[in-house]
Amino acid sequence: MATKPGARAIITLLSDFGTGDAYVASMKGVILSFNPQAVLIDLTHDLPPQDLRSGAFILAAAAPYFPPATIHLAVVDPGVGSTRRGLAARGQGQYWVGPDNGLFHLVFSQGADLEIVSLENPSFFLPRVSATFHGRDVFAPVAAHLSLGVKLARFGPAVTAAVSLGFPEPSFGPAAIHGEIIYVDRFGNLVSNVRAGDLRSWAQGQGLHFQLGPIQFRGLSRTYTDVAPGEFLALEGSHGYLEIACALQSAAARAPGQLGQPLTISKG
Amino acid sequence: MATKPGARAIITLLSDFGTGDAYVASMKGVILSFNPQAVLIDLTHDLPPQDLRSGAFILAAAAPYFPPATIHLAVVDPGVGSTRRGLAARGQGQYWVGPDNGLFHLVFSQGADLEIVSLENPSFFLPRVSATFHGRDVFAPVAAHLSLGVKLARFGPAVTAAVSLGFPEPSFGPAAIHGEIIYVDRFGNLVSNVRAGDLRSWAQGQGLHFQLGPIQFRGLSRTYTDVAPGEFLALEGSHGYLEIACALQSAAARAPGQLGQPLTISKG
Amino acid sequence: MATKPGARAIITLLSDFGTGDAYVASMKGVILSFNPQAVLIDLTHDLPPQDLRSGAFILAAAAPYFPPATIHLAVVDPGVGSTRRGLAARGQGQYWVGPDNGLFHLVFSQGADLEIVSLENPSFFLPRVSATFHGRDVFAPVAAHLSLGVKLARFGPAVTAAVSLGFPEPSFGPAAIHGEIIYVDRFGNLVSNVRAGDLRSWAQGQGLHFQLGPIQFRGLSRTYTDVAPGEFLALEGSHGYLEIACALQSAAARAPGQLGQPLTISKG
Repeated sequence: MATKPGARAIITLLSDFGTGDAYVASMKGVILSFNPQAVLIDLTHDLPPQDLRSGAFILAAAAPYFPPATIHLAVVDPGVGSTRRGLAARGQGQYWVGPDNGLFHLVFSQGADLEIVSLENPSFFLPRVSATFHGRDVFAPVAAHLSLGVKLARFGPAVTAAVSLGFPEPSFGPAAIHGEIIYVDRFGNLVSNVRAGDLRSWAQGQGLHFQLGPIQFRGLSRTYTDVAPGEFLALEGSHGYLEIACALQSAAARAPGQLGQPLTISKG
Repeated sequence: MATKPGARAIITLLSDFGTGDAYVASMKGVILSFNPQAVLIDLTHDLPPQDLRSGAFILAAAAPYFPPATIHLAVVDPGVGSTRRGLAARGQGQYWVGPDNGLFHLVFSQGADLEIVSLENPSFFLPRVSATFHGRDVFAPVAAHLSLGVKLARFGPAVTAAVSLGFPEPSFGPAAIHGEIIYVDRFGNLVSNVRAGDLRSWAQGQGLHFQLGPIQFRGLSRTYTDVAPGEFLALEGSHGYLEIACALQSAAARAPGQLGQPLTISKG
Repeated sequence: MATKPGARAIITLLSDFGTGDAYVASMKGVILSFNPQAVLIDLTHDLPPQDLRSGAFILAAAAPYFPPATIHLAVVDPGVGSTRRGLAARGQGQYWVGPDNGLFHLVFSQGADLEIVSLENPSFFLPRVSATFHGRDVFAPVAAHLSLGVKLARFGPAVTAAVSLGFPEPSFGPAAIHGEIIYVDRFGNLVSNVRAGDLRSWAQGQGLHFQLGPIQFRGLSRTYTDVAPGEFLALEGSHGYLEIACALQSAAARAPGQLGQPLTISKG
């Protein structure tokens, strides 16, 4: 399997642009104008406008399933036209292009071997860069040039660290874990910031008690149908985080407003 | 035209995952990791959650327009993690991969020449299979391996019949057909379970009277603009089923709650 | 870069079909049945049903970013099955296929070098053409044949002009420009029909005053963050039209019902 971008490179796209306007298509047109062989795959464009956290979560959840050397072009960009930096990076064996505003926080915080450059070489941008749409004018052409084999260093000077996002981290105490809900998916499953692997290490096989606001229950489930319909349950989500769900129903509909709510896990 | 899958095979994807989460993208990443040449086409991911009937209808409506040997990967999977079987199949000259829960009912019930296997060979799954996302961990890698030419028999033992869906069938009497509405499209057109060809054979050119709840009218139209704006009409939908529509308006908005409602067609 | 369609041609798709039904997928299946090498890119399918103006706007905004010889297949088709003509055309160095109902108005009105034919040769259609879905039965196969190198003239006789759309044009007076809002994007930005280049020529560097219903303010901004959060602003949108926005908020939510509302720009 290729470990460097090539003409038939895979470029994923993530944004908060929705799919109803011309924005996403314009970015794809730009990429194909530079590299007609590129394979374009949408991660999502339905992020809530300017929601960097959800974007960071989806990047971290989907990217590991793509081949090495995949290029991820991600644009959630409330600061477009301001002085916020644009970046291209190599990390986790893949490539990353977008604004330096924390969107890549979860990806970059997991890896040691990380190379980041600041996008400062306009010869890889569109000839005329608008003040409002760098996704099309800066990031798409940079991703396309990356896919053609242009080296990272040619896009601009190295930078030592990208902007962090202030993503909430759970606290692990001897008696309890204090986490919070960081993402709600289409089925109304409530994804927490507690990694399932960390939970397993902490629990050492003991029984678990979960409390999310007024909702309380015991026991870790394996599937969404381990409990009776309508009952709440906790399980290891497919993305690797602990998830609170409701059997055959939407937990988010049953317990609304949970994004950011504290989740407490205790032993016994 | 190829009649067997090959490296540049077409793989369609259908699900109820929506396009806002990482689920669909993760499946695409898995497929491209095994077969970077695969051509990925979305049927839809906007099915109402766990709506097997709508999924079955869309598969049956869209698949015939794809080339022979296309692989259709379909995941509406309320029973994921339970004992429900996964299947791969060859039928109608194409390939089918997904849970064995009725999703392929309309496709499989139309064809005589059908070969189905139960997915039991983990060497074609991801190394670690989660309890909650077989779309990514089982069905996507199986579809990818099919596209690389792996024979059906290698995925598991043959099974004689897939699960049926209890799809409603219309009854044809000498004086009337009793059918029902099985699908509502984006334009609010109400699709019935009466196949247009069967209706023509039954009607023998006689005039027709339609009754759907309080809505009554006479005559079969050819296009959506055959009657005055706002009037109801019946016509042969592009999918081959009789459809109740409203000229330049949404029939579903004018007559809500019609999914599952009885439709009576009589002569005269 | 190729200037003629070829086997690995890019075909974009635009429609008001949504992505929840089988319509879009059926068109893609038809194209790939004729040309399995075609590269399919969605412009959008989320147009409000039968909204020709929004379709025309998105075509005009996105198409220039695609490579020469790209084929744009666009289907917003309230008159399907009536006597409205179907067309294929070459203009702006690209190809255009769809109903002749004004959908290509903005594209065709910009270019001098335009060749249009009426789709009358059924040997390039599907064998059975339905009365309700020419996107699948007529336009998709025509686009596919174009991508395989079939010459325009073979699809039917030349026509001298396509149907116009009655797109509103702004009036430029010595003291004021009278325009209107023609499009609202996902972020609630209000796009006017005043081209930014025309505004610059008219303003000659003088200060500007904007009035949109009760909203009034002075000054042209460069980015969405040039004013305080919640304040209205005007800037050159990335599509080249003057746009009314609201810093870090949705202008459409703050000032609803603006589509079609008059916008007055005066000097001073």
